[in-house]
Amino acid sequence: MPTVPFQDRWRDHPVFGFVDWILRGIGQVVFQNNPRSGAIILAGIFYNSWIYGTICLFATIVSTLTAILFKADKGMIKDGLFGFNGALIGIAFVAYTSPNFTTGNVPNAYLIFYIMLCAVFTTIILPAFGALLGPHRVPGLTMPFVLATWFFLGALLQFTTIDVSNALKPTSPADFSGPRPDYTWITWFHGITMGIAEIFFQDNWVTGIVILTGIAVNTRIGALMALMGSTLAVGVAVLYGAHDEAIRDGLFGYNAALTAMALGGMFLVFNLPAFLYAFIGALVTARVWASLGIFLEPAGMPVLTSAFVFVTWLMLLAKDGFSSLIPVAPADATTPEDNLRRFGKSS
Amino acid sequence: MPTVPFQDRWRDHPVFGFVDWILRGIGQVVFQNNPRSGAIILAGIFYNSWIYGTICLFATIVSTLTAILFKADKGMIKDGLFGFNGALIGIAFVAYTSPNFTTGNVPNAYLIFYIMLCAVFTTIILPAFGALLGPHRVPGLTMPFVLATWFFLGALLQFTTIDVSNALKPTSPADFSGPRPDYTWITWFHGITMGIAEIFFQDNWVTGIVILTGIAVNTRIGALMALMGSTLAVGVAVLYGAHDEAIRDGLFGYNAALTAMALGGMFLVFNLPAFLYAFIGALVTARVWASLGIFLEPAGMPVLTSAFVFVTWLMLLAKDGFSSLIPVAPADATTPEDNLRRFGKSS
Amino acid sequence: MPTVPFQDRWRDHPVFGFVDWILRGIGQVVFQNNPRSGAIILAGIFYNSWIYGTICLFATIVSTLTAILFKADKGMIKDGLFGFNGALIGIAFVAYTSPNFTTGNVPNAYLIFYIMLCAVFTTIILPAFGALLGPHRVPGLTMPFVLATWFFLGALLQFTTIDVSNALKPTSPADFSGPRPDYTWITWFHGITMGIAEIFFQDNWVTGIVILTGIAVNTRIGALMALMGSTLAVGVAVLYGAHDEAIRDGLFGYNAALTAMALGGMFLVFNLPAFLYAFIGALVTARVWASLGIFLEPAGMPVLTSAFVFVTWLMLLAKDGFSSLIPVAPADATTPEDNLRRFGKSS
Repeated sequence: MPTVPFQDRWRDHPVFGFVDWILRGIGQVVFQNNPRSGAIILAGIFYNSWIYGTICLFATIVSTLTAILFKADKGMIKDGLFGFNGALIGIAFVAYTSPNFTTGNVPNAYLIFYIMLCAVFTTIILPAFGALLGPHRVPGLTMPFVLATWFFLGALLQFTTIDVSNALKPTSPADFSGPRPDYTWITWFHGITMGIAEIFFQDNWVTGIVILTGIAVNTRIGALMALMGSTLAVGVAVLYGAHDEAIRDGLFGYNAALTAMALGGMFLVFNLPAFLYAFIGALVTARVWASLGIFLEPAGMPVLTSAFVFVTWLMLLAKDGFSSLIPVAPADATTPEDNLRRFGKSS
Repeated sequence: MPTVPFQDRWRDHPVFGFVDWILRGIGQVVFQNNPRSGAIILAGIFYNSWIYGTICLFATIVSTLTAILFKADKGMIKDGLFGFNGALIGIAFVAYTSPNFTTGNVPNAYLIFYIMLCAVFTTIILPAFGALLGPHRVPGLTMPFVLATWFFLGALLQFTTIDVSNALKPTSPADFSGPRPDYTWITWFHGITMGIAEIFFQDNWVTGIVILTGIAVNTRIGALMALMGSTLAVGVAVLYGAHDEAIRDGLFGYNAALTAMALGGMFLVFNLPAFLYAFIGALVTARVWASLGIFLEPAGMPVLTSAFVFVTWLMLLAKDGFSSLIPVAPADATTPEDNLRRFGKSS
Repeated sequence: MPTVPFQDRWRDHPVFGFVDWILRGIGQVVFQNNPRSGAIILAGIFYNSWIYGTICLFATIVSTLTAILFKADKGMIKDGLFGFNGALIGIAFVAYTSPNFTTGNVPNAYLIFYIMLCAVFTTIILPAFGALLGPHRVPGLTMPFVLATWFFLGALLQFTTIDVSNALKPTSPADFSGPRPDYTWITWFHGITMGIAEIFFQDNWVTGIVILTGIAVNTRIGALMALMGSTLAVGVAVLYGAHDEAIRDGLFGYNAALTAMALGGMFLVFNLPAFLYAFIGALVTARVWASLGIFLEPAGMPVLTSAFVFVTWLMLLAKDGFSSLIPVAPADATTPEDNLRRFGKSS
């Protein structure tokens, strides 16, 4: 009789199951299919702002309920895979419409309804990426979130009932014009920790450390990769002379941290070539983040996690071209440690 | 001995067959594989402007002839599937180069040759979308038209022989700066009827009603979906406070009408979840139209039907993820009523 | 016992093999899997500028070594298929950061490291296009180069250690405002020869003729197609009244030349419909080049060879829709003459 792993105790519970799925949904933003990771991360967000915490929870619930309504795959729902895009949508739309980006402002009824429809939409388009990328064993990542945000955010500029006059301000690299090569240890410390926190749009280094802890309770390798990605991004930015403030805000790091986690053990078995692959991926992502900002700047749109998505997609699509890499299909991927134990031998 | 349906009398006729294919080509813009629908729609366009009617006919003929020349699939040619992108190209290029957008101006020889090449190009790239999306049982929709227009329209800005100084004006949401929440029943009536008419670039509510009639002679459900899509789009725009003039010009509605038709019965069997899916799709499309305008505005490019194409593609690609939806393969799709009769039982 | 063709003498040599692969890598930019073609083209580049020649060689080596390091397919490495994107990256990044575009300036250490990482990246993402397009028997073309340049070039604007103040200047069609219809024989002669040279970013008509010679030693049809493509592009530009200077700089021609080569014999057997297809493709590409410039202008990004890639992809993806065309799978494609001999009979 197989024993249920500790973290899966509540997954199939008739009442508490739903809570479990929602927490996993929050954890899945950083690839953690574990309700404890989700709970810790949510606590970290609430520590920074109860507004962000509440809207994150709300939108995750909306997108998960939509999947239940349209009878999506039960296993995917239980793994939180219909929740993580919603989680980000909720925070993003409050962040981009709040005069106070750091903690967010309480959304009005129009905006709440807007976020609802957008969260519904992320669920509805999620299987599209499974259909397109599934045959290549490449996951959709946070593309539903990115696309839905781009699709809905611009529309706000056409409407009068939601104010976006403060929107999109702190996320484009071109917005910074302060002095550049004036780096201190704060540049590095804030850059690295806020790089983790910015995955969830949180301008708070404590939250960054809490999120990293949430990852670490489920996977040590994953947490190290996130740290490596964020650190490399700060390194690139410092070496090439980026704006000090842009670095300290964690803007270079959050995409690179996600790329490093995806390539370093999650969807590729964690061997030396995969480590090198993740290392290069993080270096590249830091630049791609900056470059996409230039492309999106004329439209005033934020980069979001698109740099991570594009680089990781391309590098995962390419994986079969390099025989030194051992791919892990998205449906089989759990944690780097577990992937290594199960698939590492074929190396 | 199978009897030929009434609307297919002329389809295989050696002489009149070609006329039949061309009329179907015009009908296929709104998914109607029926020469009567095409004839009524063409009459509606001629009612607004003989220039638009003539160039529409001309470009449909050019793109259909190209398909014959390169020996494309006979069945597809006869169903008008190589005509509808050309039909839109002809009207679009006159509309975007005419000082008078409403009725268009007579094109010069350079422009006619330009339209010819562009119509040829839509035919040539059409099978590309079949190759990419066919395995997912998703149709190419009007993407050849959208892509060819984007590919060719910008080039005009580099050339002196065709004047585009008036071009691209009334199609971007950002172009409107008049008073917003000053809605009357005209906002709704014009918004809804012109929303249908704008599918063919016609600033004429009578033409909108004629086009709707052309759809209704072939499918009642389809016509209702078009009406629902256009109405929902106006509703979204009014609720969130869009510009009155942009609404009255039908700009919010034409993409939403097409999305509602595609999802509501045409490529999904018309059951309750499909209706809900089409409903959400139309709501989303209205916003995506506005948002894509923001993305395309810096380049001065029009949104065209790209909002409809992107939303419908994503939602159709996702269909297999939701077991409550019953897909209809593009090659099997005829009308919502007929699809329901043939495939509805598997529900 | 099969004899090794003359041009393949050194391909499997333990020492000189690597030199052979690098030269093929340079030749593959224009589809020539022949070290002699690569050597002649490299000589043509050195004739214009030793800086461009050296960086081209350097980046080709970096991207080829990366493929060896990650254990990519040996056959593809030997055919130079992991080199040609790197070759273009090297030249492009020097060109876009040099005050003197024509001959380039010596890059600093930051830029050299930047080029290295970018060349590595083109190799890493190359198999992604094989995975996506391989099933359709469509090659990735120079998309890794285009994407990597867009991904890395914009980032430079965020950094202080590499100066891009002069960058991106002469490649967007909107940058020209001089008199237009003042064409002379120089317009045609420079337009056509520089159209070939601009494939490698060389502002030198002699280099253009040398490159054409490099193509001709491997395939007469290919060289004629390149010439036809460049000539048609100049013809379109003159007919529709483009800027004289933009034409003379070869900017209209280089994408059209590549499209004509790809469709005219390389990936389609060279019969009459394929010739017509290549003819239309070249005409279309000249316009698409101009149009993409309008899209990329707000971001300040260059078109590169993206017009060629998009048009050729679409037209090759569509090939199975037209029974008059005989496709050649990328892995089987050698030269137009050889393709015709082997596959021409099935016509």
